Amino acid sequence: MRTTVGWKADGHPAVLRRVPLERRDLRPDDLAVRVDYCGVCHTDLHALGARSAEDDSPLVPGHEFTGTVTETGPEVTRFRAGDPVAVGNIVDSCGTCPMCRAGQENFCHTFPTLTYGGTDRQDRTTTLGGYAREYVVREHFAHPLPAGLDPATAAPLLCAGITVWEPLSSLGVGPGTRVAVAGLGGLGHLAVKLAVALGAETSVISRSADKAEDARRLGAHDLVLSSDPEQMAAARDRFDVLIDTISAPHDVGPYLRLVAMDGTLSHLGHLGTLTVEAMDLLVGRKKLSSAGSGGLPATAAMLEFCAEHGITADIELLPSAQVHEALDRLSRNDVRYRFVLDLSDLDDPDGPDGPNNPIAPA
Amino acid sequence: MRTTVGWKADGHPAVLRRVPLERRDLRPDDLAVRVDYCGVCHTDLHALGARSAEDDSPLVPGHEFTGTVTETGPEVTRFRAGDPVAVGNIVDSCGTCPMCRAGQENFCHTFPTLTYGGTDRQDRTTTLGGYAREYVVREHFAHPLPAGLDPATAAPLLCAGITVWEPLSSLGVGPGTRVAVAGLGGLGHLAVKLAVALGAETSVISRSADKAEDARRLGAHDLVLSSDPEQMAAARDRFDVLIDTISAPHDVGPYLRLVAMDGTLSHLGHLGTLTVEAMDLLVGRKKLSSAGSGGLPATAAMLEFCAEHGITADIELLPSAQVHEALDRLSRNDVRYRFVLDLSDLDDPDGPDGPNNPIAPA
Repeated sequence: MRTTVGWKADGHPAVLRRVPLERRDLRPDDLAVRVDYCGVCHTDLHALGARSAEDDSPLVPGHEFTGTVTETGPEVTRFRAGDPVAVGNIVDSCGTCPMCRAGQENFCHTFPTLTYGGTDRQDRTTTLGGYAREYVVREHFAHPLPAGLDPATAAPLLCAGITVWEPLSSLGVGPGTRVAVAGLGGLGHLAVKLAVALGAETSVISRSADKAEDARRLGAHDLVLSSDPEQMAAARDRFDVLIDTISAPHDVGPYLRLVAMDGTLSHLGHLGTLTVEAMDLLVGRKKLSSAGSGGLPATAAMLEFCAEHGITADIELLPSAQVHEALDRLSRNDVRYRFVLDLSDLDDPDGPDGPNNPIAPA
Repeated sequence: MRTTVGWKADGHPAVLRRVPLERRDLRPDDLAVRVDYCGVCHTDLHALGARSAEDDSPLVPGHEFTGTVTETGPEVTRFRAGDPVAVGNIVDSCGTCPMCRAGQENFCHTFPTLTYGGTDRQDRTTTLGGYAREYVVREHFAHPLPAGLDPATAAPLLCAGITVWEPLSSLGVGPGTRVAVAGLGGLGHLAVKLAVALGAETSVISRSADKAEDARRLGAHDLVLSSDPEQMAAARDRFDVLIDTISAPHDVGPYLRLVAMDGTLSHLGHLGTLTVEAMDLLVGRKKLSSAGSGGLPATAAMLEFCAEHGITADIELLPSAQVHEALDRLSRNDVRYRFVLDLSDLDDPDGPDGPNNPIAPA
C-alpha cells in the first residue's frame, strides 16, 4: 500500500478531517497522480449531507481534479512521470457492454466505478476521491491535460465542463442555435462559455438581475430575468436548447415554455424525481432530457475544444484546509463560479490541521 | 340557424340523449357537412366523465369524423357539394401567431378552437362535436378525404392517426429506425401500421400476450411482453423511438429503459402530470416528449400517406344509437381497435331514441 494525506468525512453531521489515507500499489496499467487542484462540486455537498450516523464507509470527496503523474505501472503507454493529467468522476467501467464499447463508459450497464464512493472492481475497496494529495487511477480513465490549459482553472472542466458539454454537443449546438442557460453557477457559467465558443446565440436565464454584467462578460447576448413575468412571456418559444443548471428542485414548466418548437430542455442541476405537465411538452413538441458527466472520448474532445478556445472555469482558489469554507459558501451559492482546492498545503505537516497543528472542525 | 340531430350530454352522471341541435348559418368560408362516420375517442369518455352536476355548457362529443359536403359558403374554393370531407379535433385558430403561421394550428398561442367544447371565435357559442348528423366548419379546417380511403375506417385517422403521425414524422422515423409502440389500442394499432409503412423495424410492447398475433398481422416484427421482466431486460436500450400510447396513468421508467442512446419516448396516451426519474433520462441521454393532434399541413400529409399505403383504422362500426355501448366498452379497453359511429340512423325518426321511439338512458 501507498500512503497519502487527504480530507475524510468524520462524525455526524460529517466534517472533513485531514488524515492519512491508503492508496493501492500500482497495478500494471495504473498511474500515481499527485493531485494539485480539485474542484468542489455540488455532488460533494450532497455526499456529505446525505451521510447518516450509521454510515461507516469511508468518504473522501473530489471528482474533478488535475495533477502530475509521479509514477506509472509497467503497461502504461500514454503517460510518464511529470506529465500533467486530469481525472473526472469515473475511474473504471466494465469495458465490454454496448455503452462502454460506444465510448459512453458513464452509462456502463454494470454502472461505472465512481471516483469516490464507488467500489473498486478488483479489490472491492471503496474509492476515495481527489480531496487528497495522491490518487491512483487506471491510465484508461486519465486524460492528458492539453497544453495551454491552466491546471487550477481546468480542474472543473472534468465534471462541470463535461456535464454541460454532453448536451451541447449531442443536441448539435452550433452557429445559429439559440441556446439559453438557466442558472449561472459552476455548470451554468461553463455552459455559456462553451455555447458561445460553439457559435450559438446564447442567453442566460437568472433570477438575479445583478448577473447581467457577468453574463455579458462570459459572452452571452442577454439575460432573461426569470422573476419578471413580462420578460419570461416575451421569451416564449425562443430557444432551441435550454440548459437548466438550477441546482434546487424547481418547476420546469416555466422553462419549457421558453423552448422553441421541437426544442429540448436538458435538465442537469437537480438529479431527482422530475414532474412535468404533458401539455408543457405536447404544445410545441418539446423534449425533456437530462445529462451528467460523459464518456471518455467526449471528455477528451471537450478538453481539446477548451484548449483551442481558451476556456476554463472562473474559480476561487483556496488552500485545501479551507474546504469547509468552500462547502459552506457553495451551499449558499456564494461563489463565482467554482471553488478549487489547492492540495499543496497537504505537504506541510505544520499547515492548518496538519499533524503538528490540528484545528478544530468548522 | 340550421337544425340537425345529435347526441348531447344530459344529467349527472351524463348520458347522451338524441336531441335536435342548432348549427350556425353558413359564413362565407363555411362548409355544411353531413356527418357520416365519427370515431369514438378516449377524450370523449374523459369529457363525459369530467362533467360536473353544475356544468351547464352543452356537450356533444366527437372530433374525428368523415362526411359529405352538402352546402358551401360563397368564398369556399376547395370543396363543393358532394365532396367527401374529413374533420379532426380543431376547427379554428388565430391564424396569425408564429405557430399558426408555421402550420401548427394545434399549438396556436391563443389556443385553437376545439371541435367540441371550444368557443367559436365569432359568436362565442360552445362548439358541438361530430356525434351529430351535421357539422358546420370553416373550409380551412376541413380536409378533402383522399380517394381510396374508406370513410368509415378513415374517420379515426383524424385524431388517433394524426396524434401518432406527429411524433413518428417529427422524430424522423423511416427505414432502419427501431420503433416500439407501447399499448395496442386505438392509437397504438395505427402507430404500428404507420411505422411499418414508414419502413421502421416495429415492435409492440403489451401486457397481453394474446395481442402477439394481432401485432404481427399489423406488420410488427415482434411483441415484448411488459409483464415479463426477462423480456423487458432483453429489450433494454433497444428502440430509437418509443410511442407510449398507454391510456392509464403509469410509470414511464420501465419504458424509458427500453429506449436506445439518444432516443425518445413520446408519451401520448395520458395527458396529465408526468413524473420521471432524472436518472432514467440521464443514463443514455434519453428524451421524453409528448404529442396530441397535429397541424393542418401534417394532417393533410398523413391522409395522403394513408391513401398511398392503404392505411385506415381497424374498427367496429355501430349505429350511433349504440354510442353508450361503445363508450362503456371503450372504458374497459374492449375494442379492436376503434369504435366508429354510423350517424345515418339519425335520419330515421323511428330509429332508436328517435322522436317516435324514445329509449331509456343506458
